[in-house]
Amino acid sequence: MNFLSDNAYGVLPEILAAVTAAAEGTAASYGSDDLSHSVEARLAAVFDTPVAAFAVISGTAANALALATLCPPHGAIFCHAEAHIAVDECAAPEFFTHGAKLVGIDGADGKVTPEGLTRALSHFLKGFVHHPQPAILSLSQPTECGTLYKPDEIAALAAIAHTHGMKVHMDGARFGNAIASLGVSPADASWRSGVDVLSFGATKNGAMGAEAVIFFTPADASDFAYRRKKAGHLISKMRFVSAQLVAYLADDLWLRAAQTANARATKLADGLSKIASVEVVHPTEANEVFLRLPVTLALKLRDGGAQFYDWGPPENDHSVIRLVTSFATPAEDAERFVALAQSK
Amino acid sequence: MNFLSDNAYGVLPEILAAVTAAAEGTAASYGSDDLSHSVEARLAAVFDTPVAAFAVISGTAANALALATLCPPHGAIFCHAEAHIAVDECAAPEFFTHGAKLVGIDGADGKVTPEGLTRALSHFLKGFVHHPQPAILSLSQPTECGTLYKPDEIAALAAIAHTHGMKVHMDGARFGNAIASLGVSPADASWRSGVDVLSFGATKNGAMGAEAVIFFTPADASDFAYRRKKAGHLISKMRFVSAQLVAYLADDLWLRAAQTANARATKLADGLSKIASVEVVHPTEANEVFLRLPVTLALKLRDGGAQFYDWGPPENDHSVIRLVTSFATPAEDAERFVALAQSK
Amino acid sequence: MNFLSDNAYGVLPEILAAVTAAAEGTAASYGSDDLSHSVEARLAAVFDTPVAAFAVISGTAANALALATLCPPHGAIFCHAEAHIAVDECAAPEFFTHGAKLVGIDGADGKVTPEGLTRALSHFLKGFVHHPQPAILSLSQPTECGTLYKPDEIAALAAIAHTHGMKVHMDGARFGNAIASLGVSPADASWRSGVDVLSFGATKNGAMGAEAVIFFTPADASDFAYRRKKAGHLISKMRFVSAQLVAYLADDLWLRAAQTANARATKLADGLSKIASVEVVHPTEANEVFLRLPVTLALKLRDGGAQFYDWGPPENDHSVIRLVTSFATPAEDAERFVALAQSK
Amino acid sequence: MNFLSDNAYGVLPEILAAVTAAAEGTAASYGSDDLSHSVEARLAAVFDTPVAAFAVISGTAANALALATLCPPHGAIFCHAEAHIAVDECAAPEFFTHGAKLVGIDGADGKVTPEGLTRALSHFLKGFVHHPQPAILSLSQPTECGTLYKPDEIAALAAIAHTHGMKVHMDGARFGNAIASLGVSPADASWRSGVDVLSFGATKNGAMGAEAVIFFTPADASDFAYRRKKAGHLISKMRFVSAQLVAYLADDLWLRAAQTANARATKLADGLSKIASVEVVHPTEANEVFLRLPVTLALKLRDGGAQFYDWGPPENDHSVIRLVTSFATPAEDAERFVALAQSK
Repeated sequence: MNFLSDNAYGVLPEILAAVTAAAEGTAASYGSDDLSHSVEARLAAVFDTPVAAFAVISGTAANALALATLCPPHGAIFCHAEAHIAVDECAAPEFFTHGAKLVGIDGADGKVTPEGLTRALSHFLKGFVHHPQPAILSLSQPTECGTLYKPDEIAALAAIAHTHGMKVHMDGARFGNAIASLGVSPADASWRSGVDVLSFGATKNGAMGAEAVIFFTPADASDFAYRRKKAGHLISKMRFVSAQLVAYLADDLWLRAAQTANARATKLADGLSKIASVEVVHPTEANEVFLRLPVTLALKLRDGGAQFYDWGPPENDHSVIRLVTSFATPAEDAERFVALAQSK
Repeated sequence: MNFLSDNAYGVLPEILAAVTAAAEGTAASYGSDDLSHSVEARLAAVFDTPVAAFAVISGTAANALALATLCPPHGAIFCHAEAHIAVDECAAPEFFTHGAKLVGIDGADGKVTPEGLTRALSHFLKGFVHHPQPAILSLSQPTECGTLYKPDEIAALAAIAHTHGMKVHMDGARFGNAIASLGVSPADASWRSGVDVLSFGATKNGAMGAEAVIFFTPADASDFAYRRKKAGHLISKMRFVSAQLVAYLADDLWLRAAQTANARATKLADGLSKIASVEVVHPTEANEVFLRLPVTLALKLRDGGAQFYDWGPPENDHSVIRLVTSFATPAEDAERFVALAQSK
Repeated sequence: MNFLSDNAYGVLPEILAAVTAAAEGTAASYGSDDLSHSVEARLAAVFDTPVAAFAVISGTAANALALATLCPPHGAIFCHAEAHIAVDECAAPEFFTHGAKLVGIDGADGKVTPEGLTRALSHFLKGFVHHPQPAILSLSQPTECGTLYKPDEIAALAAIAHTHGMKVHMDGARFGNAIASLGVSPADASWRSGVDVLSFGATKNGAMGAEAVIFFTPADASDFAYRRKKAGHLISKMRFVSAQLVAYLADDLWLRAAQTANARATKLADGLSKIASVEVVHPTEANEVFLRLPVTLALKLRDGGAQFYDWGPPENDHSVIRLVTSFATPAEDAERFVALAQSK
Repeated sequence: MNFLSDNAYGVLPEILAAVTAAAEGTAASYGSDDLSHSVEARLAAVFDTPVAAFAVISGTAANALALATLCPPHGAIFCHAEAHIAVDECAAPEFFTHGAKLVGIDGADGKVTPEGLTRALSHFLKGFVHHPQPAILSLSQPTECGTLYKPDEIAALAAIAHTHGMKVHMDGARFGNAIASLGVSPADASWRSGVDVLSFGATKNGAMGAEAVIFFTPADASDFAYRRKKAGHLISKMRFVSAQLVAYLADDLWLRAAQTANARATKLADGLSKIASVEVVHPTEANEVFLRLPVTLALKLRDGGAQFYDWGPPENDHSVIRLVTSFATPAEDAERFVALAQSK
């Protein structure tokens, strides 16, 4: 019962097959091969618009390169106070942007609100050189709390950002889980709602190591390729990364994998919410479940073979824990976990 | 007949098998899995000394992170004027080190000489704040010209560097080819000759995307892990990178693969050196052959199906071209190329 | 009635005389002159301990260089949420440190508390590469609210910082005002309370443009001189900066100037606190007075010739305003301001 | 007889008077005062074109900020191999640009030639991500050898640069000496010859510490003010810097001061060139004289009270030395030096 992370699971068979097939013969290096050339067009088809897209091999690289491409060193990047870019990337955005300021915004369930964004912006005077200048709004979809922005919520935030001359970045490390849950098109959840650049994750959802940075205004990406190279993120045998992305997008594999992960989380949340001593802390809208439960119960669950992270230190004899499900989480694991939590 | 790059070839079957095997089950992420934990010990065994070792997925990342770990922003890095770090990484070392100075040193056949190094150092006054301070000597092994430093040559250069308080970095993107050719131990060609940190490449020699940065004084590496994370180079499913390195080192696979590559280059050089109109420009000591030949002959070779890079623009109706062989270059390709070059 | 900033005032006559005298004859450049050499010893005498000290010409440079010298790129710098380094330097610390993370801590009257610091530290796991590593506690003395840390308050915070392996920086842009008010020795308010490095400001208190960065453990400063040069902050005719510092320290000029400034603020606060419609928002402990007053009264004061800044936007028909006094603020200006505020 | 540097001399009386006058009364800080506002217009008048101009207090800051404003992190900056930005600023440009590559070009008498520039550019392929992209040509005027580019020489180099999409920077730390010697207008020696941004130095020519960065296409400067602030180079009491620049430009003070310096150098060169054992190494076109002379003669000159720098280590019992003259170098010093060199 591994609920530590979707990263703990291996690779979708279709993706492994694609990597194996890519090993045949010779191919141009550094992304000049045919497979790599095809990635952009496939993403354009999925998103129903021309894009400039670039493969990288980590979510941190995707986020940091996307941000640095659109944010000058004297820019400010607004995000939720608990956003991954703010708290879990060892300040990679500050490094890649050469010192931009990340501004954390509080908000329930991991979500930035229009009020929160507006209030934060009020502290940054346009043209006042002592203040970093608002440059980017970064939204995590799903959020760090496993919740989702609906397209109209994104649009409302993006409208504020654009009014202030900012660009909108979406950290979609689990974008597939968001789309599978929202039931809207990738386009509606991104550029049609005002997203300018998307970190489109595949690794957590069944790839070996593959993410794409997708610019919906291709001209925005004019120097991305140089930044990627300069950061050591241009892979010589890029075809092995591209093969993963191509397989991931084919036949809606990415959405099917995400549906499985989401279903497992729903099953967990449904079962656990009926247990009196357990509180589901945030709405379970994708593939993460956050629970507040007695420390003794957490201990019993671990003794029973469940693996998961504590989300902060215990308070009042209760812990908040995080369960993450994946494309390969067995249904039985969810059932066993619920049963274990129910047992006296 | 693809002689463009060793990167053009796929993956050794043993490595593909290892990646496939690593896809089974769950594992801790970000390098906390058992396979990843084993990499350091295996490298220590190969190098016959305790090491601190870190996996990354590109040679540029390996070099830039190694350099940044040992060179302060106000440091100077001495290398051959044609070194990969100086001319082919879009100034990644300058980015990762936050503005260190790369100092190019001329030298025949791609090699830094003691005289060249001493002369270059004479322009940098110790303690004079207007000058970046000598911090690193970086040697490419094999060099950009496909030649090799013998252990005593490395030792002589390292002695000068150490006398000046500098560390010695070795860019071993093709380190396997060097060891297979030199016939000395990995230890003798590295730390026993004064190398402090090695970029140990596997990708060009049959991995999918895997390099290791090896510090021979583990204390030198104290902040490497943070720099790797901050640069987006800590892979979440690290086991897939580690699996490649483990398979690469097992049963001398890396040396056998390199021997094949080197043998193909030797065959090319032997055959081509007998052709009157063709000059082998640098000694062929690893898996690269540099030729000066009439432009018309280069054209004929390309028409005959050979792929290779021009090494600079033509002069006096002659081109310099580079041929690179790999673990998977067919012996017949080398024979066909020579035959094509001989034919009237 | 200029209460906009202490920066709005000119130069102490003794400092102008010193600059004029320094213009005579020739002198070694870049700080190698006798006057510049003497600055360190004079600061050591004032602080009653050996120091490594360096002159710069702006407070932002002093802070950013001090922080970068002691904080690695993957470090975290803890400071009050409203600290100057956090909100008013266009993210200079992030630039100079190459991407360190500034962590803002809330606290009444601009002061960091032990509880606030401890809570903030709890979010940063030691050795966890995803988190920037706690490296610096930065305290502003006086704070952005014109309040002061007493030596034992500094010591309590420094003890927490040192326990976590962090260094303590003090932003003393108005350090003279603090010492003049606290009535303790410079040593007690700095290194004896655990401060490792001090940005010692002179500009706001009557210099033309001169600050010193003072390291109380000289070995900590080993690469400061290179960082200063690399940032363009090593002045060629350094004697003109050094002359200011020497004159500033001579005969307690700095303390006398600060006493004047503080006395003006006290006079303002004393008078204003007796007016029913005016609230003194923070204790007036140095040379800044913060008032909450009706917007109409603020308008009347401006109409009457007073210059000052609003501190944030008005709320409920009241503004918070800041008054800053200086070494040269006329006593009559303080009296006139109070009278104007009292008048119907 | 101080010929070490023009920096060794103090301040022009007119500039000291202006600084003294600026100390009166209160003024807006951070460059918002009237005097500071007037600088741009005065420079526009001197250069006969609208400009965007910014004051800083060091030549390194002027150069590094100018370069960083126009060169992306993945850009390449071409300059003479001995240029100040390349060898004497502790790699400040690499820091400010976040890792751009400086490309040194050899050339007689410190000058870049069209052939040298064209050859250097041939190594940088446009659009090839492995290569930094040509972004800036930086010319020093006068050069590090005290020689000058004539306007048509600048124009020829600028034409090549512009054809390659590059901008042209001029390091005019001694620009006044260049104009005083060339006898052409500031406009002809800068933007009319293709210069896009000029580091306009005043410090070496009689200011206390004042330089201006002048953009001849104001739109190029859109983010300069933020970069200046972020680097700690926005001075709070900016009026003291602006006062220097205003006085420097008034009544051609800058040109008169430079004429004095140049005349001293000419007197030295004329006298010394007649001495058999002394060779004037480069044409003396501004205020620097380079001599090759017996080590014994250098010793005798120093024994006689002359101060100057060796320009590299002695070879064959001869030294190359540099003499720099300034606005305040006594004519007698030049005469005494020549006489001393002539004496048996």
